[in-house]
Amino acid sequence: MEATPKIEPIISTTMADQVEERLREYITHKAFRPGDAIPKEVELAEALGVSRNVVREALSRLRMLGMIDTKKRRGMILTQPDILSGLERMMHPHILGTDTRKQIFEFRLVLEVGQAALLFVRKTDEGIQKLEAIVKQESQVLTIQEKVDCEIAFHSALYEMAGNETIKRFQAMLMPVFEYVVEYETDHDFHTVGSVTHRDLVNILKNGTPEEFTSGMLKHLEPHLLRLA
Amino acid sequence: MEATPKIEPIISTTMADQVEERLREYITHKAFRPGDAIPKEVELAEALGVSRNVVREALSRLRMLGMIDTKKRRGMILTQPDILSGLERMMHPHILGTDTRKQIFEFRLVLEVGQAALLFVRKTDEGIQKLEAIVKQESQVLTIQEKVDCEIAFHSALYEMAGNETIKRFQAMLMPVFEYVVEYETDHDFHTVGSVTHRDLVNILKNGTPEEFTSGMLKHLEPHLLRLA
Repeated sequence: MEATPKIEPIISTTMADQVEERLREYITHKAFRPGDAIPKEVELAEALGVSRNVVREALSRLRMLGMIDTKKRRGMILTQPDILSGLERMMHPHILGTDTRKQIFEFRLVLEVGQAALLFVRKTDEGIQKLEAIVKQESQVLTIQEKVDCEIAFHSALYEMAGNETIKRFQAMLMPVFEYVVEYETDHDFHTVGSVTHRDLVNILKNGTPEEFTSGMLKHLEPHLLRLA
Repeated sequence: MEATPKIEPIISTTMADQVEERLREYITHKAFRPGDAIPKEVELAEALGVSRNVVREALSRLRMLGMIDTKKRRGMILTQPDILSGLERMMHPHILGTDTRKQIFEFRLVLEVGQAALLFVRKTDEGIQKLEAIVKQESQVLTIQEKVDCEIAFHSALYEMAGNETIKRFQAMLMPVFEYVVEYETDHDFHTVGSVTHRDLVNILKNGTPEEFTSGMLKHLEPHLLRLA
């Protein structure tokens, strides 16, 4: 006896969605490598049984993500995608929901704490001098804007030192959302710092261990962490 | 005397690239909110002085990123974008470059260490029991595959407990790349663990502090961290 066929729900997707997915499957399953050529638009349209317009739309999406590129005389080739390109386009606080903003706020806290793992492998005298200069400047500034600038400069210099381009770009994208949350969605000052200051963190970086640094960063971020729920 | 006009380099972009960028600027500068309607395709084409095909291509990209949606009778509206949708499409180890894979490998290590910041705010008895069950099972398994499964289950349960959907999805995407790097690009066993075991980490989670947990995780991940350069 045959089993009753399951009724599949109709998923609302456009033709371009389907063709895009099919092309991504094709590209990723065939184990293509960056630089490899992919079939022409007209050939893809024929193979998939859809119009060239739909194929063009789907290819345009992949081009936006940096997965393919069009080269003179070589046609379309696979490229090493820029994994953060899609993300970058969406990181505007007000087009995100409150939940997403909150999650991004937390994401940045997690990165700040976790990057100790990289900092102690990659710290340099030059980088530490840069951090010390920022701390010195910070002790002399007066206006809120100057303080914000020092705050951002300090944490950016840490990411620079950690030497991971993906994390660095990622956190730079999170920054506006993080600031937005602090400014508009908490009752609390951007500059509320915990019992461990920037100066303390630099000293740990110079003479301490990764373990001491993560502990210090948790204390530094404590005012933010205390309001998580 | 006038300054010599600077010769701007010609940047190779397609019409769709330009229209996509213009639309994103329009959407983000106008301070639209999710749910707001945006002009019709034909109106956009007219305003931008380009063909409808090009506008359709650009809108298709925004639709893929989840920034807009088409509703019956309401036309196109802004949606709360799914910030990870672009990223998700590209997380296939072999289409990424070696550098990107290495950076993603490090990214995951940073997240593991940093999430202590969230774990201690959100830990539950139920979550800890789940971790204990995994640790118990782990002590009884024999095959490599079973060990890998327990390893993944343990770390996934931690992300579950940390309660941040964006980080959870993000790390789930990083996972295949992380495993690929460990398996193919290092001379070293996926299961090499440091002096702190999963069982130790659970005990710290039960009775310790966030500071002790980050320290413990750094020790747990030490074999991976030692090979960073």
